[in-house]
Amino acid sequence: MYEFEKVRDFTNNVFLKMGCSASDAELATKVLVSADLRGIDSHGVARLIGYVRLWETGRINSTPNIKLVHETPSTGVIDGDSGLGLVVAPKAMETVIKKAKNVGSGWISVKNSNHYGIAGYHAMMALEHDMIGMSMTNASPLVAPTFSTERMLGTNPIAVAIPADKQPPFVADFATTTAANGKLEILQRKGEEAPMGWIQNKEGHQTTNAHELKEGGALLPLGGDRVHSSHKGFCLGSIVDIFSAVFSGANYGPWVPPFVSFLPMPEDPVGEGIGHFFGAMRIDGFRPAEEFKLHMDTWIQRFREAKSAEGMPDVVIPGDPERLSEIERLKNGIPLNDKVVLDLKEVAKKFELSF
Amino acid sequence: MYEFEKVRDFTNNVFLKMGCSASDAELATKVLVSADLRGIDSHGVARLIGYVRLWETGRINSTPNIKLVHETPSTGVIDGDSGLGLVVAPKAMETVIKKAKNVGSGWISVKNSNHYGIAGYHAMMALEHDMIGMSMTNASPLVAPTFSTERMLGTNPIAVAIPADKQPPFVADFATTTAANGKLEILQRKGEEAPMGWIQNKEGHQTTNAHELKEGGALLPLGGDRVHSSHKGFCLGSIVDIFSAVFSGANYGPWVPPFVSFLPMPEDPVGEGIGHFFGAMRIDGFRPAEEFKLHMDTWIQRFREAKSAEGMPDVVIPGDPERLSEIERLKNGIPLNDKVVLDLKEVAKKFELSF
Repeated sequence: MYEFEKVRDFTNNVFLKMGCSASDAELATKVLVSADLRGIDSHGVARLIGYVRLWETGRINSTPNIKLVHETPSTGVIDGDSGLGLVVAPKAMETVIKKAKNVGSGWISVKNSNHYGIAGYHAMMALEHDMIGMSMTNASPLVAPTFSTERMLGTNPIAVAIPADKQPPFVADFATTTAANGKLEILQRKGEEAPMGWIQNKEGHQTTNAHELKEGGALLPLGGDRVHSSHKGFCLGSIVDIFSAVFSGANYGPWVPPFVSFLPMPEDPVGEGIGHFFGAMRIDGFRPAEEFKLHMDTWIQRFREAKSAEGMPDVVIPGDPERLSEIERLKNGIPLNDKVVLDLKEVAKKFELSF
Repeated sequence: MYEFEKVRDFTNNVFLKMGCSASDAELATKVLVSADLRGIDSHGVARLIGYVRLWETGRINSTPNIKLVHETPSTGVIDGDSGLGLVVAPKAMETVIKKAKNVGSGWISVKNSNHYGIAGYHAMMALEHDMIGMSMTNASPLVAPTFSTERMLGTNPIAVAIPADKQPPFVADFATTTAANGKLEILQRKGEEAPMGWIQNKEGHQTTNAHELKEGGALLPLGGDRVHSSHKGFCLGSIVDIFSAVFSGANYGPWVPPFVSFLPMPEDPVGEGIGHFFGAMRIDGFRPAEEFKLHMDTWIQRFREAKSAEGMPDVVIPGDPERLSEIERLKNGIPLNDKVVLDLKEVAKKFELSF
């Protein structure tokens, strides 16, 4: 277990060493380690070395000029100037919140960005303003459309955060695939098998061998196969891709650049960097916020009380597991696996820091 | 096969007999039979008798006063006054399109409505304005959350329509369950088994017996079970429910009233009628529409060309099957099964019409 403060301060120092301003480093750190707190280990400091390497190869700009390049009162496009998605995304979210304050809702598509951490962090920024927040992003192609063997989409997550009154907020944050890539990475590391329905091999047949993902295989869209409606997962991933990148002028589909520095950039890019999409809707753009939040309490309470099947746990309200993880890890620390610790030590050495 | 014009004109006469104005009858007809044309047989004239019976029991108002009861420049709530969803929904969609023209996007949540036909029809209304259209609705509870045996959500569909240039538009329209209820109705009628992963019995165990759905069973959220991420389908269905009903003041979750007149209304309703949610975003609120549409052509073309697995068909672009069905059925007519024809003859007799 690693103390949260230690992990946080180290991360902050790394971003400072990369040349980020003090405020950008603080913001990027807050976003990145929120994943470690919320139990989404694949998206936290496990990725820090990845950001460093992309910065070293010049694919991340640590002093970006983030600009709103097109707008209407409720919509617009932000150019992230190759900045850290961890900085570009919360700034875009601030813009949609401002637009929602003015005209009821705000919607921003972002181009020329990089990996933005967990989708849920950004969506949740809207909560304190009595707004519903939304966040989505495209990502490096790992997912094959139904019937295909080609990796055409990223795991393209969607997050929606909805405030309640006495109940904690409803926070959905999920990849549009059957399994998030982070789960596969864990299986690969442990040498364990994946359930059928998560991945296919290079011929397009489902397989339980998690390593086949690295040998021309692909993740499957939510649903798994056509009989179980994988075309719906494909629709969702496609919508995220289009909103994030075709709206903004980022790369889409198989042209999305990889997160890892050792893979080459795609030839003939169709846009700039990767894309995100953010939204905020003011609750009182629809009905008085207090009234809405009381009904959200009723909604959440009723679903909590839904009868469970024998031997099954209670119905999980989206956001509950992550919230409980955050409480627990703030107290007891962050578990980091050996590979991540080695990576962090390598980063420490590079920047003459200690970890 | 029944000539499209015959089915359409009969439907129009039925709505007139129910007391709809000429323009409302024409609109409701256009929406309802679009399902028959697009091959979504469960949502077309197969449901006409259902609307008639709800009208007879006073649950549908054929002369509603549809009102915008709350608004900001980009958001608002419409009260459907118990009108046909087939009329309320396209009128709400007109409002979001108008708001998008003014401020870039428009978002309307609707209360006090009824079944609105296919979600895709409404979303597609935005296309001719060079906008992206969105439509969703809650529905009678048939779906159990992950781990639960209780029917808490409807099949709660989501539709997103996105214009392209030379390519046909991208039109996704799907229930947030593994299988739409219409597919189960077909299996029940034919006495055939359902694939595992579509439904569970009253104990919460997956079953292939489609009849168990009527004996306390439930449809499963997209994903099917926890291992295959049914919690993501549950998130999606929940978001549709909240946007459609908690935003607007309609009934949500297990309180959503049934579509069939022989089932009683839920006690202690938490709102009025069922709820919908609509959105429109102006393409040029993000980037010039021509530029966007050319990139959509590239997106669609590239996904069409994605390599198929051996023995598998080409990748299906969302909206293609429905578009091809429409061309075919306009020419060759609408197939109606015997049960539907009997229902239509009963409606004809009731109103002294002929079918």
